[in-house]
Amino acid sequence: MEFLPLSGADESLSLGEGDSPLLPLIRLQHKFELPSVWAKDEMLNPTGSFKDRGTVVAVHRAKDSGVRKIGTVSTGNMGASTAAYGARAGMQVFVLAKEDTPREKLLSAGVHGAHLVQIRGDYGELFLESYRVGSRHGIYFMNSTDPFRIEGYKIIGFEIYEQLRPRLPHYIFVPVSSGGHLIGLMKAFIELSRAGIIPSLPVFIGVQAQGCSPIAQAFSSGRARVSRVPAPGSVAQSINNPSPPGGNLLLHMLREHDGAVTAVTDEEILTAQRILAREEGLFCLPASATVLAGMLKIRDEGRFRPDDRVVLVITGSGFKNIPVLEHQALSIHSATPASLDALIASL
Amino acid sequence: MEFLPLSGADESLSLGEGDSPLLPLIRLQHKFELPSVWAKDEMLNPTGSFKDRGTVVAVHRAKDSGVRKIGTVSTGNMGASTAAYGARAGMQVFVLAKEDTPREKLLSAGVHGAHLVQIRGDYGELFLESYRVGSRHGIYFMNSTDPFRIEGYKIIGFEIYEQLRPRLPHYIFVPVSSGGHLIGLMKAFIELSRAGIIPSLPVFIGVQAQGCSPIAQAFSSGRARVSRVPAPGSVAQSINNPSPPGGNLLLHMLREHDGAVTAVTDEEILTAQRILAREEGLFCLPASATVLAGMLKIRDEGRFRPDDRVVLVITGSGFKNIPVLEHQALSIHSATPASLDALIASL
Repeated sequence: MEFLPLSGADESLSLGEGDSPLLPLIRLQHKFELPSVWAKDEMLNPTGSFKDRGTVVAVHRAKDSGVRKIGTVSTGNMGASTAAYGARAGMQVFVLAKEDTPREKLLSAGVHGAHLVQIRGDYGELFLESYRVGSRHGIYFMNSTDPFRIEGYKIIGFEIYEQLRPRLPHYIFVPVSSGGHLIGLMKAFIELSRAGIIPSLPVFIGVQAQGCSPIAQAFSSGRARVSRVPAPGSVAQSINNPSPPGGNLLLHMLREHDGAVTAVTDEEILTAQRILAREEGLFCLPASATVLAGMLKIRDEGRFRPDDRVVLVITGSGFKNIPVLEHQALSIHSATPASLDALIASL
Repeated sequence: MEFLPLSGADESLSLGEGDSPLLPLIRLQHKFELPSVWAKDEMLNPTGSFKDRGTVVAVHRAKDSGVRKIGTVSTGNMGASTAAYGARAGMQVFVLAKEDTPREKLLSAGVHGAHLVQIRGDYGELFLESYRVGSRHGIYFMNSTDPFRIEGYKIIGFEIYEQLRPRLPHYIFVPVSSGGHLIGLMKAFIELSRAGIIPSLPVFIGVQAQGCSPIAQAFSSGRARVSRVPAPGSVAQSINNPSPPGGNLLLHMLREHDGAVTAVTDEEILTAQRILAREEGLFCLPASATVLAGMLKIRDEGRFRPDDRVVLVITGSGFKNIPVLEHQALSIHSATPASLDALIASL
């Protein structure tokens, strides 16, 4: 635990998060003439996303501090994660959601007994308001850039290092919303480098959806600060964050360490979702598929060398958003037991 | 691999299945005055259910045999699992589903490129027809009681043994649909017993939903054979199997080894789903929640001793059926940033 700010592990808080597989994507690599690619499969966490990595650390911290009420501001995945770990710890949980958060995403937090509140109004304002309300009511709001969450995301980076060892990754692709996840991953490798364990950092590439890409816009235009984007909208709903609280820090870190942020279209995202599912059996959220779309862009720019090693962090399970599959134009055939033979012969 | 009928492990087929956590349920135990309880959390498999354990073994077998086309008859979870592993292996996949299978369950198989066929007509007949069609078209139908699937389910049993060691479980509760899963778990402990590794078997309790409980009915009425039940219907959709192909074998095995099959109501199932989510942070399918409902029944019958150790096998993730949460009567509050403070004070 020497790299983490906790007293020690508390198994009663764990739901079996972490130790996610690093899967070689050999079929993908051959089909698209890519360098060696691995998926760090964060879908295999208890609530189906990388959020659990941060939540367990933040809840641990809450318990150490004697806090009995926790909360989060969420568009979906974070709410489900915080509600699940809060329930496991016997805490009262408050989930504040944007007005347009799909009802089904709220229900998957509510089943754990969390108080669900849909907020009409500005999302950035809500983020700040949650801290004010939290301090008045004794609620620890563990939002997307909570420092203990970020410590939890670091562990994903340490695992990538351990799982590839003695080889090192050249590139790591990560979807970017608030910025907290990528900040945590970069911190892991920066700490390994400072400790003299690795000679250099991988190139970190954050990927946003073009419909909501405030960090990518600031990066490409050379600005030091992220501007709020109006009316965000992309198929990658869980990373539609118009005013990312970690954006400025992330911009600074990426520039210091030769990283980048890129943006991909909804069409590229849906294509990437389909490719991962069809070629490798990985059904992920559109937000997660951005990393493959981003990788294909970098390939098209001719930046990879054949012996590069690339890691795609697949952040969340496709089961959390089945309705989006209506965009994939899948066909369903119909038959009787008697007509089945002829149908199969025709497929 | 000595307990498995395979040449060796093939990592290119794996999606990171298995090694699921065995979670102590301490809050549940105290709240409901239970003996020691653990959840074997099979939700933490790549497609969110225990089916992946069997699918990976069957697909491995298919590859060893040079088969390039696979299929399954499914109400949902098995289709998604077979489609994912088939995609990973580069195989053509056929998913045959009952007419009333929810569209969203089919889509999660279709995203992997599987051929989806909805069948009007009898489900039991479809099961047999799949083998006839398969043999004509060179498709290996790996259905619920496929012997290689069952070998995969054995591994869950071996893991429970390893994770509790040196202690042994006294009871293992498992949802029952086709019977294949429980047969596999029992085989694991029978093999451990025959090898002299354990002195006796745990008591296995299969749980069905009262709305579709052909095996429980045969068990309680002392019959040697399972009769088809008409018009099945329960909230536990993924175990609504009116004509379970493994039923007769399972009845025989349970009687030989002092096990039992019980049935629980939809109300008990939904209550159990809520308890697992609220007390322990485990959001599972209604079918999976049957195991807690069954355990509470056995507790009410006074059968547990205080020092018993009980394992509940939680078979599938609740994210695979969010709409069922509409039964849980969850309330969603509404506020503006300005009215949030007053709302939280009132909760």
